[in-house]
Amino acid sequence: MNFPPKLVDNAIEEISKLPGIGKKTALRLVLHLLKQDQQTTQNLSESLTRLREQTQYCSTCHIISDTSDCTCKTIKRELNTICVVQDTPDVIAIENTAQYRGLYHVLGGVISPIEGIGPDELNIDTLINRIKDSEPKIEEVILALSPTMEGDTTAFYLTKKLKEFGVKITSIARGIPIGGELEFADEVTLGRSIMTRTNYE
Amino acid sequence: MNFPPKLVDNAIEEISKLPGIGKKTALRLVLHLLKQDQQTTQNLSESLTRLREQTQYCSTCHIISDTSDCTCKTIKRELNTICVVQDTPDVIAIENTAQYRGLYHVLGGVISPIEGIGPDELNIDTLINRIKDSEPKIEEVILALSPTMEGDTTAFYLTKKLKEFGVKITSIARGIPIGGELEFADEVTLGRSIMTRTNYE
Repeated sequence: MNFPPKLVDNAIEEISKLPGIGKKTALRLVLHLLKQDQQTTQNLSESLTRLREQTQYCSTCHIISDTSDCTCKTIKRELNTICVVQDTPDVIAIENTAQYRGLYHVLGGVISPIEGIGPDELNIDTLINRIKDSEPKIEEVILALSPTMEGDTTAFYLTKKLKEFGVKITSIARGIPIGGELEFADEVTLGRSIMTRTNYE
Repeated sequence: MNFPPKLVDNAIEEISKLPGIGKKTALRLVLHLLKQDQQTTQNLSESLTRLREQTQYCSTCHIISDTSDCTCKTIKRELNTICVVQDTPDVIAIENTAQYRGLYHVLGGVISPIEGIGPDELNIDTLINRIKDSEPKIEEVILALSPTMEGDTTAFYLTKKLKEFGVKITSIARGIPIGGELEFADEVTLGRSIMTRTNYE
């Protein structure tokens, strides 16, 4: 019996290549699409094709963009601060806080010897070029990397690399999350939050 | 700041219309696709478009099919038995057991007053027509519906409807799953498994 049909099998195959989606979920999605009108599927596949064909990475800051006018070229931002992040979702997360008006620089990953990612695989050269050549001068580089071993290694590497350019290097604060209970915080975080305590202003 | 870009937003919008996929997962999928080569996305969207455009439902048994030669028209199956199931995944599940060689009939749902699904919404008329008109004669109808209230209601309804055609109506066995521990089985299942005990052959 030729079942499920080739078309279904093929769609399942392609969908289950996506991360976190297995064959069973893919089948469920396929059956869902088959129950919707044709327009739904058409919109979905067109949006994917357009996404992949037209989305570009800014050659300066490596943020995804659909125009050549990336954020890093707009004068509406504060042009003397660069926030260095691992990847695009971090940019979205920081933008959602509405607390930052400067520029971004997407590294495209963090240094991870286990996964074979060294500094050369990351967008570090372009970061150095931005700091060297920028007009107005970059005054502060904020490292907004995850507090993991890889993130810390990358931060350490960047600090060493950027020292010679006389730019101020800061890191986002580590500490007790807002709403977090002190007694449930791990010792490392709590210890760090005491060491890096801030003044009441 | 125009971020995330429209193309990304649009793709997230379309992807998160799928069941079980929220905006965060959609963003993760989008970023994954952007990291793969263009061919991956193209294959995905083409397979979806082809799926939706070319997949048909057999007008006799309502199974999805990509050709006009549906299973119910092949002579390789046993043509005197119909297995009635709720939806396509059930057909796949039963096919995977390799224990059944007869025909199928997909109801497209089960009777559910809460969701407003009555017998008229299901493919029951076509089932009756198949039983009436078939050549060779249908001798057995196996009800392979889930042992839920809706499934049982549907089975009860079908049993009443099909009685007049003098066809044998059976149900898949309810009982202790293979590998299941007796002591952890619920009382209803265990009680049913004693009532419907089978002979050692």
